[in-house]
Amino acid sequence: MKKFCILMCALAGMLFSSCCGGDTDKGWTTVDGVIVFDTPEREPGQQSVLGLRTEPMETVRVGFIGLGMRGPGAVSRFTHLDGVEIKALCDLYPERVEASQKILEERGLPRAEAYSGEEGWKQLCEREDIDLVYIATPWLKHVPMAVYAMEHGKHVAVEVPAAQSLDECWQLVNTAEKTQRHCMMLENCVYDFFELTTLNMAQHGLFGEILHVEGAYIHNLDEFWDYYQGNWRLDFDQKHRGDVYATHGLGPACQLLDIHRGDKMNYLVAMDTKSVNGLKTAQEKMGATEFANGDHTLTLIKTEKGRTIHLQHNVYTPRPYSRMYQLTGTEGFANKYPVEGYAFRPEQLANDVPDHENLSAHGFVPEEVKAALMERYKDPIVKDIEEKAREVGGHGGMDFIMDYRLIYCLRNGLPLDQDVYDAAEWSCIGSLTAMSLEHNSAPVAVPDFTRGDWNKTDGYRHAMVGE
Amino acid sequence: MKKFCILMCALAGMLFSSCCGGDTDKGWTTVDGVIVFDTPEREPGQQSVLGLRTEPMETVRVGFIGLGMRGPGAVSRFTHLDGVEIKALCDLYPERVEASQKILEERGLPRAEAYSGEEGWKQLCEREDIDLVYIATPWLKHVPMAVYAMEHGKHVAVEVPAAQSLDECWQLVNTAEKTQRHCMMLENCVYDFFELTTLNMAQHGLFGEILHVEGAYIHNLDEFWDYYQGNWRLDFDQKHRGDVYATHGLGPACQLLDIHRGDKMNYLVAMDTKSVNGLKTAQEKMGATEFANGDHTLTLIKTEKGRTIHLQHNVYTPRPYSRMYQLTGTEGFANKYPVEGYAFRPEQLANDVPDHENLSAHGFVPEEVKAALMERYKDPIVKDIEEKAREVGGHGGMDFIMDYRLIYCLRNGLPLDQDVYDAAEWSCIGSLTAMSLEHNSAPVAVPDFTRGDWNKTDGYRHAMVGE
Repeated sequence: MKKFCILMCALAGMLFSSCCGGDTDKGWTTVDGVIVFDTPEREPGQQSVLGLRTEPMETVRVGFIGLGMRGPGAVSRFTHLDGVEIKALCDLYPERVEASQKILEERGLPRAEAYSGEEGWKQLCEREDIDLVYIATPWLKHVPMAVYAMEHGKHVAVEVPAAQSLDECWQLVNTAEKTQRHCMMLENCVYDFFELTTLNMAQHGLFGEILHVEGAYIHNLDEFWDYYQGNWRLDFDQKHRGDVYATHGLGPACQLLDIHRGDKMNYLVAMDTKSVNGLKTAQEKMGATEFANGDHTLTLIKTEKGRTIHLQHNVYTPRPYSRMYQLTGTEGFANKYPVEGYAFRPEQLANDVPDHENLSAHGFVPEEVKAALMERYKDPIVKDIEEKAREVGGHGGMDFIMDYRLIYCLRNGLPLDQDVYDAAEWSCIGSLTAMSLEHNSAPVAVPDFTRGDWNKTDGYRHAMVGE
Repeated sequence: MKKFCILMCALAGMLFSSCCGGDTDKGWTTVDGVIVFDTPEREPGQQSVLGLRTEPMETVRVGFIGLGMRGPGAVSRFTHLDGVEIKALCDLYPERVEASQKILEERGLPRAEAYSGEEGWKQLCEREDIDLVYIATPWLKHVPMAVYAMEHGKHVAVEVPAAQSLDECWQLVNTAEKTQRHCMMLENCVYDFFELTTLNMAQHGLFGEILHVEGAYIHNLDEFWDYYQGNWRLDFDQKHRGDVYATHGLGPACQLLDIHRGDKMNYLVAMDTKSVNGLKTAQEKMGATEFANGDHTLTLIKTEKGRTIHLQHNVYTPRPYSRMYQLTGTEGFANKYPVEGYAFRPEQLANDVPDHENLSAHGFVPEEVKAALMERYKDPIVKDIEEKAREVGGHGGMDFIMDYRLIYCLRNGLPLDQDVYDAAEWSCIGSLTAMSLEHNSAPVAVPDFTRGDWNKTDGYRHAMVGE
């Protein structure tokens, strides 16, 4: 009977699919009501880059592409890193390249080779003396540049979201697997201090088994839209429904849940509000008469191990900034916005707090207990560089920690903190949520970009020399 | 082409339904991938109770059923209300009735008629000298008692959730429509001060158009399970997957969104974690080997007007208490947990705050601005009785305001604040989320319990004499 049901469901799914455009020609079908995109076969010559280690290098030679918004800050931070040579700078506009040259000069460093114009980035990628291409361009340029750089033997660091469609996600994965190059998405929020400390506490078991994690990008961009060259960000949102900027919320969540390192995201459902403020802004700035992206978008994700992730996206309404960042475990709880706090069953803190019996599982621990815990569980990767990170800055220091870790791992031949599967998993949410939204919030399967290897790594860890 | 698609989708839906148990014999089918439960026809002799007004009464004569947990507090609060006579008290156990008689005695009131045993509640409902039956019994007793009371001509106030299945929801609606009696669910959280004030601010347009609302019941019940007679609550959760206790979160959300008063809930999707702590508790207390209710359950609801509601349920893990209660509007934002705060576009406060230009849409307004706003927008229904409510108490006063409003409206022949459609809408979430969860988070339509009248009332309002 059960087999019959499965057969009938598959049949119904096919019918349903075919009438809604979901035949396999379109790249997806439905199984038990879940929309499943096709997984392309791994081509000959490709092999997994899980845990990829490349030859250690004394000095990492870097080229930067994109010096408009995020780029100059990255150049500046790199001048504070040991074992780095800034070899080349590239932007569409030569004056921006020149402005970043000034950053080098001010730090007493030699000028870099300058590239500009539509094809400048290709010339940069083609240089022989570069190990790492660091990409901070508009979203739709990320994948063409990252792929080209890897194909020319370079490791890649690319801003968020790394990819803007499912096809682009696979392009990144396939190219990394073909070239055996690193492709790290520059998800900086996993390096914020509260997140790093909480991750470390989680890995020490303080929260028990983690059941549910939340993340978001809630940031009113009213005052920022004009900074995006040619209005590219508003234009992208105008054309795309779904959570188009999920990585800041999802990255920390996936690290807590060991995604593709013991657990995997199975499927998601999404729901959004109509667009009111987004449309109004686009009418004013672009003369648009419609706007695909809802003012508020919500996503629920279920994992193989029966855990859940909740994401939100809202860049349109007046609200305090929030990445939500919340963790619910069987024995404890962490919350970052609007106030940082931890709650535990008192016995969880038996080794950490003298009077743990007096704590309540129903309220946040007092400030002094929180401070003691945060000091005790400070992540090892932060310990040596915390002071310098706060000094160099970049979103309060997390950007510097990110760059530091990237260079540390490359120099020591260690796996990077974020691999290309992370980049694909965290970036694919835009496309998958759009699909769900266009189908009355139907469940949509999350592709396994590791193609079966999601359970081969024993938990998420930051690689360290000597471990 | 579109017509063909709809036809094919319907066909696919039927096939899908039939193989998964969803034929019409089972009471549901699927349309465009959405599971839709059948709506029973309104029977002859029934008519809508939208905006129901009954004859004003000088004195409301009340009988209480259920004097275990919530009942005695209600009896106590009623002794502080004008225009009330407590005629009868009933519980399964005579000693509980006696304990509540003591409450009357202490307040210098005459003893009430006492009922106990399995059938005592029926005798209470059959009395001629009672206008209102107030039910605070275990969940599965609510509907049989409420229906019986209405059939005997009584108005009904019933604890949350009013009904435990879709069939029970319709029983309440049909009986109220047949008997033209009030059936108010005792959802107290809509009367909490922050919620009432925020609702009033919303009705004055401070938040612009409301786009998204959140609510929850997050309350670790570890220390409370043993108080539920015969372990009925844990037993219910053990047998039922889904958000079984949604009303505290959903009630305030629905009032903000004018549900069945201009907008309606169209469909929902739900997702839950596995059960770890719930199962462990049930193993210890009941010897259970499985547990249906997930430790954390999430629900997204889409409305006809393109707005969204997000609900959570978690009574199993150590976390600070939270009903979430959050409102996102085009011009403002409100948040209750873990800190109460408001954020607005500064120009929204031009009439309320002298230096509104100095406020930021990116942060909560300062405490003094919040205090001034909360005083200015205090709900009219609170103004006269705030002091007394805080004195009498009951969850900080909100229980007293609820009882006060119930009696005020009955005495003045006004529509109650919560009608039977609210009771059904807020209670049906348990069944609908269970259905979604059993089908990979598939969308499930929310029934229109008004049977087409959801758009006939112009917004949610508290009825007041002279308005």
